[in-house]
Amino acid sequence: MAVAGDDCIFCAIVAGELDAEIVFEDEATVAFLDVRPLFPGHVLLVPREHLETIEDLPDEQVERFFLNGRRLATAVREAMGADGTFMAMNNVVSQSVPHLHLHVVPRVRKDGLRGFFWPRHKYGEGEMAAAAERVRAALG
Amino acid sequence: MAVAGDDCIFCAIVAGELDAEIVFEDEATVAFLDVRPLFPGHVLLVPREHLETIEDLPDEQVERFFLNGRRLATAVREAMGADGTFMAMNNVVSQSVPHLHLHVVPRVRKDGLRGFFWPRHKYGEGEMAAAAERVRAALG
Repeated sequence: MAVAGDDCIFCAIVAGELDAEIVFEDEATVAFLDVRPLFPGHVLLVPREHLETIEDLPDEQVERFFLNGRRLATAVREAMGADGTFMAMNNVVSQSVPHLHLHVVPRVRKDGLRGFFWPRHKYGEGEMAAAAERVRAALG
Repeated sequence: MAVAGDDCIFCAIVAGELDAEIVFEDEATVAFLDVRPLFPGHVLLVPREHLETIEDLPDEQVERFFLNGRRLATAVREAMGADGTFMAMNNVVSQSVPHLHLHVVPRVRKDGLRGFFWPRHKYGEGEMAAAAERVRAALG
């Protein structure tokens, strides 16, 4: 199934050519610990197939991938005694490895991530309606 | 379908009782602009039903929810002329509204989010294997 892309470390993990702390695997996905975690227990879920971003995940893989992601959210929270989880995907920008991966990160209250994490902005006059119109148009 | 929870602003948006820039809706989900965006075009996708976190999303809603999320990723990127997207869910911790929502945020290179965004840590001796063992145990 897995086609190891040149220099793709996640393909190498999927193929068993690179050691990783694998916590779960099935026919379509592999989950392993991130070696540089936001917090201990930070898991990455990847498709076995070398797909770059969420936009490349085929229709027929979406349900299995996110059922596994939801299952990992529960497991990571319970395993690490966390209050909740942060789940995220960086598509292209800030994506350190160009092989689709869902981060599942245990969070506890007052763990220090809040604050710098969401540097919110305000829309100026008319800007919000204009942005909405552009997204609606792109949805067709 | 929507059961408006007391004081739940997302239930109010779903029920049409609170104005929002809705960009998409179907039987199961509604997507609208976040009023305090990370960047313009930042969309929130919510289930119509008042579910608190990803762990509460029923099996039969997972596929539709994330197919819509993937579609929004493409639309937001195209609409805002972005290079990629950031998709995230905060479950419990840092979750400002306790109604499940998937953030879909347009990103461009050098947009200033990189750096503070991923304050990575290192595992000490033996800590990584121990964390993996705990997650595996929780997965059963």
